[in-house]
Amino acid sequence: MADNFFNLDNPVGGIQRMLAEGVNTSIFVGDEAMLSVVELAPNSEGSVHSHPQEQWGVCLNGSGIRIQDGEDVPFKKGDFWRTPGNVMHGVRVGPDGAKILDIFAPPREEYRNAGSGFGA
Amino acid sequence: MADNFFNLDNPVGGIQRMLAEGVNTSIFVGDEAMLSVVELAPNSEGSVHSHPQEQWGVCLNGSGIRIQDGEDVPFKKGDFWRTPGNVMHGVRVGPDGAKILDIFAPPREEYRNAGSGFGA
Repeated sequence: MADNFFNLDNPVGGIQRMLAEGVNTSIFVGDEAMLSVVELAPNSEGSVHSHPQEQWGVCLNGSGIRIQDGEDVPFKKGDFWRTPGNVMHGVRVGPDGAKILDIFAPPREEYRNAGSGFGA
Repeated sequence: MADNFFNLDNPVGGIQRMLAEGVNTSIFVGDEAMLSVVELAPNSEGSVHSHPQEQWGVCLNGSGIRIQDGEDVPFKKGDFWRTPGNVMHGVRVGPDGAKILDIFAPPREEYRNAGSGFGA
């Protein structure tokens, strides 16, 4: 069972991926869902994209702007959101950066491997 | 889009459920996954049970013991874990209590309604 226990501040057990410049994640793969612990450096951004999988995001630290379905929604630590499948979304963070837990259901095939980019 | 934005410390948008004495949750339902923000009072516990859905848990605050597949695994803030479908699991917390984000994929039908119990 030790294989199924992880920590948000430790990449052990995760697949490393650089989503964009200053946007790095550790990805933890399940059968029905996939967790992605994303560190966003100050003033970084993830470009707007979409994918068929449902996504949830939880702001663990920092703050920023969620771009979703054409709207800009400010977020801070403790906020979370749902992004239905195929809805366009992205993120921008300010000088404090942010840490976001993204949840994909079902898992995104593109994220099963280390590499770079949003894969969409 | 406002309907899809929530906060971990605010039950608005969630379904209220008492899982056990001192174990209360707000449940947020998606198409492919369901999030459950669980507040565990000091010295409370959730009895061991299972369900076919995959579950992930993230300790947001506090600490405790995860009981999973017959093992006791201590956890603290920042730890997270995966519970494959049909694996027996439960939780015990100490004098500090805990706050845990549970993720179910696919959503648990029993949790779509307010009420009490683990529904398993």
